[in-house]
Amino acid sequence: MYNFDFATRVEYVDTDKMGVMHNSRYFLFFEKGRTETMRHIGIGYKEIESKGIFMPLVEQYARYFLPAYYDELLIVRTCIKELPMAKIQFYYDVIRSENGKEIVLCSGYNSLAFVNIETKKPLRCPKWVLDKLQPLIDSK
Amino acid sequence: MYNFDFATRVEYVDTDKMGVMHNSRYFLFFEKGRTETMRHIGIGYKEIESKGIFMPLVEQYARYFLPAYYDELLIVRTCIKELPMAKIQFYYDVIRSENGKEIVLCSGYNSLAFVNIETKKPLRCPKWVLDKLQPLIDSK
Amino acid sequence: MYNFDFATRVEYVDTDKMGVMHNSRYFLFFEKGRTETMRHIGIGYKEIESKGIFMPLVEQYARYFLPAYYDELLIVRTCIKELPMAKIQFYYDVIRSENGKEIVLCSGYNSLAFVNIETKKPLRCPKWVLDKLQPLIDSK
Amino acid sequence: MYNFDFATRVEYVDTDKMGVMHNSRYFLFFEKGRTETMRHIGIGYKEIESKGIFMPLVEQYARYFLPAYYDELLIVRTCIKELPMAKIQFYYDVIRSENGKEIVLCSGYNSLAFVNIETKKPLRCPKWVLDKLQPLIDSK
Repeated sequence: MYNFDFATRVEYVDTDKMGVMHNSRYFLFFEKGRTETMRHIGIGYKEIESKGIFMPLVEQYARYFLPAYYDELLIVRTCIKELPMAKIQFYYDVIRSENGKEIVLCSGYNSLAFVNIETKKPLRCPKWVLDKLQPLIDSK
Repeated sequence: MYNFDFATRVEYVDTDKMGVMHNSRYFLFFEKGRTETMRHIGIGYKEIESKGIFMPLVEQYARYFLPAYYDELLIVRTCIKELPMAKIQFYYDVIRSENGKEIVLCSGYNSLAFVNIETKKPLRCPKWVLDKLQPLIDSK
Repeated sequence: MYNFDFATRVEYVDTDKMGVMHNSRYFLFFEKGRTETMRHIGIGYKEIESKGIFMPLVEQYARYFLPAYYDELLIVRTCIKELPMAKIQFYYDVIRSENGKEIVLCSGYNSLAFVNIETKKPLRCPKWVLDKLQPLIDSK
Repeated sequence: MYNFDFATRVEYVDTDKMGVMHNSRYFLFFEKGRTETMRHIGIGYKEIESKGIFMPLVEQYARYFLPAYYDELLIVRTCIKELPMAKIQFYYDVIRSENGKEIVLCSGYNSLAFVNIETKKPLRCPKWVLDKLQPLIDSK
């Protein structure tokens, strides 16, 4: 299991007339968390695309516990629990850190496939990606 | 079980550099489908808010089967399967209609709570909403 | 001068915590208005791209007079005043229609260039587009 | 004249099928730049709202010079040129920094009014805001 934390802020445009962050925006927080986690591991998504691979989403889920408010600086904790095969699965917590205590506002997951940009055919996870992930997942 | 179809188009802003509709946008299609379904049933969301009730999302899920492309006019089929109690659950299919054949591009669901705007406390589904839903769900 | 009206609704996601439509969303209303105007004229943007032309924005402006509220069905009035050369300019009014009276909530404009998809070089407005626009602009 | 730089990244969701950042997203970059500038000056927007003031946009403009690409870390340079009276005007440059050279991708401005949250009536810029801005604008 591998975790990576990325801090991001609730913008004005993220809010809706209920006065809280709109439900759809959490999926953009997931995207940011995933992007920064992959960058940190050394398997940046831009690099993956440059090698002829798209990673479309297969499914995603979010469970909302507590609202997020305008201007909060939240943590997106992204977690990879197992080595990917045909798909890679990410788990997320969107967290408010308050007086040293962490409150999970939203949890979710999604899984992404590996697809050849030219043929649109599914691929297995590339070896260079696995080589980066293996030690991280083993070590925890 | 009650179904309602609403047609909506993939805008340019909905697409991403993969050339297809971005995964997060399907949740906005769900929102449009739900809004128009509720309006059609006579339980418009605006009216619900005007009676002092917010309906925050509890959870939501989407499964992506096939990409949606720019400028497609898609159908959002919203389905209510059972009478709500503390929460109301909606099921969605985002559908391409092609030569009289329907292709489901994405399926999902979400559930919404009923919350008192003032106290932020959860409520049961109001009776006037149940009265509108009961005959629709019974009749199918 | 040529006008085309397209009706579109303020969605929940369009609102922000001020309780009104977020300023950035008006540009998406402009996009919808432009897209439907071009479709109506017979110069659909999808067709233009299929002929190897992208139309990136050069500039755009919006002036906000009055707020738009959740669930309002607004009119986007798109206007073309003159034949395009290197660029095409669109003017927009976002309008609330109330008891037969029209109230302009926001006005704006933008201009788009014609660019060769392959070479990224600017082009003049294609003749087939001009041929469609000429009679419309002359007739008013 | 007072300048403040804030770095922000082009997310996947910001891109469209043209392969570049969508025109509407620059206005969200302006929002981020403005928010962080105000925070840095000590007149955070959240604090302003907590004092009973909304700041709706009056107008805004963007001119697009060059496209922004996925995953770029861009600078939003926000500039205040004069002391606000009934409105405050911000100027923006969205900048790519490349080998120590700065390339402006987009420039724009917007102006915001001060409005009483309760009465919705326009206000003059509050004195405590002016007191923060005066020395910054004088000193340059």
